[in-house]
Amino acid sequence: MIAVTSNNISDERLAEIVRHIEKFGVKAHVSRGTERTVIGIIGKADPALAEQLRQMSDIENVIKISKSYKLASREFHPDNTVIKIKDVEIGGGQLVVMGGPCAVESPQQIDEIARLVKAAGGQILRGGAFKPRTGPYSFQGIGVEGLEWMAEAGRKHGLLTVTEVMTPEYVDICAQYADILQVGTRNMQNFDLLRKLGQCGKPVLLKRGFSATYDEFLNAAEYILAGGNPNVLLCERGIRTFETYTRNTLDLNAVPVLHQLSHLPVIVDPSHGTGRRELVETMSKAAVAAGADGLIIEMHTDPDNSMTGDGVQSLYPDQFARLLKDLEKLAPLCGKTFDTKKTYELV
Amino acid sequence: MIAVTSNNISDERLAEIVRHIEKFGVKAHVSRGTERTVIGIIGKADPALAEQLRQMSDIENVIKISKSYKLASREFHPDNTVIKIKDVEIGGGQLVVMGGPCAVESPQQIDEIARLVKAAGGQILRGGAFKPRTGPYSFQGIGVEGLEWMAEAGRKHGLLTVTEVMTPEYVDICAQYADILQVGTRNMQNFDLLRKLGQCGKPVLLKRGFSATYDEFLNAAEYILAGGNPNVLLCERGIRTFETYTRNTLDLNAVPVLHQLSHLPVIVDPSHGTGRRELVETMSKAAVAAGADGLIIEMHTDPDNSMTGDGVQSLYPDQFARLLKDLEKLAPLCGKTFDTKKTYELV
Amino acid sequence: MIAVTSNNISDERLAEIVRHIEKFGVKAHVSRGTERTVIGIIGKADPALAEQLRQMSDIENVIKISKSYKLASREFHPDNTVIKIKDVEIGGGQLVVMGGPCAVESPQQIDEIARLVKAAGGQILRGGAFKPRTGPYSFQGIGVEGLEWMAEAGRKHGLLTVTEVMTPEYVDICAQYADILQVGTRNMQNFDLLRKLGQCGKPVLLKRGFSATYDEFLNAAEYILAGGNPNVLLCERGIRTFETYTRNTLDLNAVPVLHQLSHLPVIVDPSHGTGRRELVETMSKAAVAAGADGLIIEMHTDPDNSMTGDGVQSLYPDQFARLLKDLEKLAPLCGKTFDTKKTYELV
Amino acid sequence: MIAVTSNNISDERLAEIVRHIEKFGVKAHVSRGTERTVIGIIGKADPALAEQLRQMSDIENVIKISKSYKLASREFHPDNTVIKIKDVEIGGGQLVVMGGPCAVESPQQIDEIARLVKAAGGQILRGGAFKPRTGPYSFQGIGVEGLEWMAEAGRKHGLLTVTEVMTPEYVDICAQYADILQVGTRNMQNFDLLRKLGQCGKPVLLKRGFSATYDEFLNAAEYILAGGNPNVLLCERGIRTFETYTRNTLDLNAVPVLHQLSHLPVIVDPSHGTGRRELVETMSKAAVAAGADGLIIEMHTDPDNSMTGDGVQSLYPDQFARLLKDLEKLAPLCGKTFDTKKTYELV
Repeated sequence: MIAVTSNNISDERLAEIVRHIEKFGVKAHVSRGTERTVIGIIGKADPALAEQLRQMSDIENVIKISKSYKLASREFHPDNTVIKIKDVEIGGGQLVVMGGPCAVESPQQIDEIARLVKAAGGQILRGGAFKPRTGPYSFQGIGVEGLEWMAEAGRKHGLLTVTEVMTPEYVDICAQYADILQVGTRNMQNFDLLRKLGQCGKPVLLKRGFSATYDEFLNAAEYILAGGNPNVLLCERGIRTFETYTRNTLDLNAVPVLHQLSHLPVIVDPSHGTGRRELVETMSKAAVAAGADGLIIEMHTDPDNSMTGDGVQSLYPDQFARLLKDLEKLAPLCGKTFDTKKTYELV
Repeated sequence: MIAVTSNNISDERLAEIVRHIEKFGVKAHVSRGTERTVIGIIGKADPALAEQLRQMSDIENVIKISKSYKLASREFHPDNTVIKIKDVEIGGGQLVVMGGPCAVESPQQIDEIARLVKAAGGQILRGGAFKPRTGPYSFQGIGVEGLEWMAEAGRKHGLLTVTEVMTPEYVDICAQYADILQVGTRNMQNFDLLRKLGQCGKPVLLKRGFSATYDEFLNAAEYILAGGNPNVLLCERGIRTFETYTRNTLDLNAVPVLHQLSHLPVIVDPSHGTGRRELVETMSKAAVAAGADGLIIEMHTDPDNSMTGDGVQSLYPDQFARLLKDLEKLAPLCGKTFDTKKTYELV
Repeated sequence: MIAVTSNNISDERLAEIVRHIEKFGVKAHVSRGTERTVIGIIGKADPALAEQLRQMSDIENVIKISKSYKLASREFHPDNTVIKIKDVEIGGGQLVVMGGPCAVESPQQIDEIARLVKAAGGQILRGGAFKPRTGPYSFQGIGVEGLEWMAEAGRKHGLLTVTEVMTPEYVDICAQYADILQVGTRNMQNFDLLRKLGQCGKPVLLKRGFSATYDEFLNAAEYILAGGNPNVLLCERGIRTFETYTRNTLDLNAVPVLHQLSHLPVIVDPSHGTGRRELVETMSKAAVAAGADGLIIEMHTDPDNSMTGDGVQSLYPDQFARLLKDLEKLAPLCGKTFDTKKTYELV
Repeated sequence: MIAVTSNNISDERLAEIVRHIEKFGVKAHVSRGTERTVIGIIGKADPALAEQLRQMSDIENVIKISKSYKLASREFHPDNTVIKIKDVEIGGGQLVVMGGPCAVESPQQIDEIARLVKAAGGQILRGGAFKPRTGPYSFQGIGVEGLEWMAEAGRKHGLLTVTEVMTPEYVDICAQYADILQVGTRNMQNFDLLRKLGQCGKPVLLKRGFSATYDEFLNAAEYILAGGNPNVLLCERGIRTFETYTRNTLDLNAVPVLHQLSHLPVIVDPSHGTGRRELVETMSKAAVAAGADGLIIEMHTDPDNSMTGDGVQSLYPDQFARLLKDLEKLAPLCGKTFDTKKTYELV
């Protein structure tokens, strides 16, 4: 960490700042330049020290050289984290495809979609029972019953399941039904929820906040890891920019960047990332070429009539199956295997 | 609402879409143009209809002409909402100033700051007992004890209090101690929290998400209003842009825009909005000139040593007092009154 | 085009607006709804009409249903534009790779890099003789001499050349030396430059402004097309977002979106798009998977000592050669061919 | 300047980097920390050195401590620059108001508007003869004749004039007719234009690029200053964000920030900054409260029929006059004087 002061600073004030720093058990190394004076802090800095320095009068700037997260960083954990759930491995050599509707709508709907996800070669069923909606008058999800229907469909068709949890009090019930718990983009910094998920015993798919930096994203993951849960999947799902043609701007740079900064698996959501069905297949392939460990894709048997209005970004079943065939060919060129015929042991 | 289709659409498909629309109890009015066909939907449209249409094949675009929020809109409620808490009126002719530290740190700290806020002419004491922090290793707030200290300081010095609540399960306890409950920027779309606040019986200061549109902001307010709580204060606190010199970009356009779209009072937070002490006084005045109903300003007796690192954006007590003197002169030119000597009846 | 008015509008005022619209030789079709009144404009609308309507009192909103550009649109020209320069075809089945330094620095430098681009299988040599620099004290490029050195290197090694032109008065001289003229991101809306390029007789590689929408990008292309030059290559080079870890956020969504909206070839620049060497190979592959027609990549024999400071995003020659080998395998899965051994006839 | 390397760097490589740095005539000061090694560069650094270091292998990060612009900085020139044109002083104690139409349309139009600007108390007439337009089919301005009409109107009514110049070849002719030359937002980094304006002999009103950082903005000003022209007016005119309700997001933080970083006068354009007439008066006042040295405001006698479509953001003459009356009262509270009755000597 480096603190920068004006060169007009008096020797007394400088000495005072140095004494303050050294109270934190680290060393301060002063270089007086021609325009600025730089104080290098040497040793493992307490995060509170950065905050203290930043607000001290006479200090113009504090620059962190080390990262603010630790457990999530590749420096701390050089090997990839591979999350093994039954027979499916996420973050290793296998490409993982999660497919399903935006929302669970009925037992028949989720059962039929599960059948199609499985038939196409997907390994995980997605679907929401609790839906975060911009306005209070939109459909808010089926609730707990939806969790049951989805769990049943997963069991029947041999698929793992992933579903969103929106508030700490529902973590336990969601963990009871689903194999992976999802945190939505608007909740990436719902810190009480993250803390609770640190203790839930299930892997967590953490969606990047739509305006979160990579650093904030990894700090959000750190909350879950620090709570004792090592199994976090990072999910890029599009950021908000000035462009309005797409619903979001899917940021594929996030894939190699997150792989560089962290050991956690990286999943891409091209459905929310673009908001347009006609872009989903292409961007799925681009995501795999960017090194994604998996995809989470909306697919619906009747997207014209989905209950959330997200049908516009849902693939039709035949598009989904065609995409997975294409991925089977593409994956090996991108360091992954993907076998649409593979049978997984899910008990 | 308007739906747009390509002009290549067949008469059969068009008739099918029209029948679908009319099932929602509204009329469809078709105009075939030279390149596009436009379907006007006439009548009070169900929000689900927009979602349905947007996802139907052959429909290129759906344009909402009416707003998606209702209770929050100026059209629904033409007069300003004035929130009266004891002797303080927010949203009427009085300018309201909330001042205090980022975090409650000790009984002495909050007592001394409360004394200074009161002496300067402020009406409301701000301070956080629960702090949302980017990383898990930063100071997370004092907790419930901090609520007690702040309530006591408010009572002693004759100030109302406002404090942040981060999760539904703490709403009741916060409502027991504070006069106004604050929702932070990262929780603007924490829908379970908003729903709970709809029933808390206390006014809510809702901070705009740092990348939320005006429309999303008013929809978040709608959650609270729809839950039965009419007393929402909208708070602009800076948006995230490409600029890194300031912590956020305080968006003062929000003040006249929100006044135009909504009847709710608009508060401005120049401390988080800029993240730099030396900008706070100037931007506070600009906010009042933009028509703000109130300001929420960080002030600290020892900002060099605040526990959250937000000291860098906190005013010193003498700056705070000087600012309030300036606002006393400025307010009357902006349609408000502000009297630093006024005594409020707070029992 | 649609104009929306409040429903409080009087019949007289509405009739007046309709008469105004009909002066433009189009029909107006009025639908009175319960909250708003919608006027559909039927027929080929003059762009001036939209502008007129938008500013009329009583009109709340004007929504364009048709696009503002024509020659650049896929609707106007359904087949892909294939730009043939000597033996190289851009926008057809061939993947095109442009490689070279940020800036031409010396005859030896550009000659050696050209040799390496050719050996690796690239078809086009890139290099700047005129450099747009944020500040006036940075190296501004070699100037006309650099054009000569690059043209000579291209000729010698059998490569086409592409170089940036910054101002109308240099268009003719650049067109004399280079095969393709490049417009930089900061000049995307330098309309006098675009107009001049409409008459230059050479293909133009138009870089997207770093905060330009797709619509503005295609309108900038329209300036060149409308000037009589049909050969425009659209180049995505990263947009500005809140993220600071990467220099820009490469927007690969642009590739399928631009292919959908336009018939023009789409080139991707992963070097400026990320600003980090270690991301360039991965993002190049992702760009090809997204359907890019070509790549423009910085490569330098001594990036530690490049004259512009862009070495940090330049590949080393061996990385460049390895990437092109990988693209040779990847391209066929993405509907393209790329043959690192192919010999082109360039006379 | 500081360069950061990994701590794994060998002593040999470190010594090599230090030797490289010292070739630039500065000293390198090495601190080895526990995780990173920091090299402080002491002395006046060549801008090329930062670029060199940034691209060197083993260097992770280069942090500039000093600013990249010099002539534009407050450190270099502690007193405010006051630009005196005839009897009008910009950047001193006087508030300056520039008013007029988006485009000059006819001699009668500009004459009548000039009369109204003068009558209301404005000092400068704005109007465009050359208009930058997103698409090639929109009205592109009257051209040189418009310059003549505007100059004549200014002379007749006793107003200075400001007009936009879009390309280097028109700088001389614009400088012949207008008192101040304006650079539009899309041309802020049109470096050939800036260089030419450095020699034009007239003050330049430089609009901030709609996605430019403060640092880039001041570097653009530096081009003009470095060319020998000390008279630059910085103009904030709104930035592009995710919000679509307003045309741009007027960034009033820019006013105190630019005053802090630079000695140049700061002008605010609330017309383009918001794009909505009903926000212009309020945001003009907020701009003055933020410390603006002047305003540039669109006003039109017949905004429903303006030729550019910018009527929607133009004030009616009576609104303009009312605003200036309000500013007369507000200015003294903001450290400025503004007298709507003052007569200026303009010969």
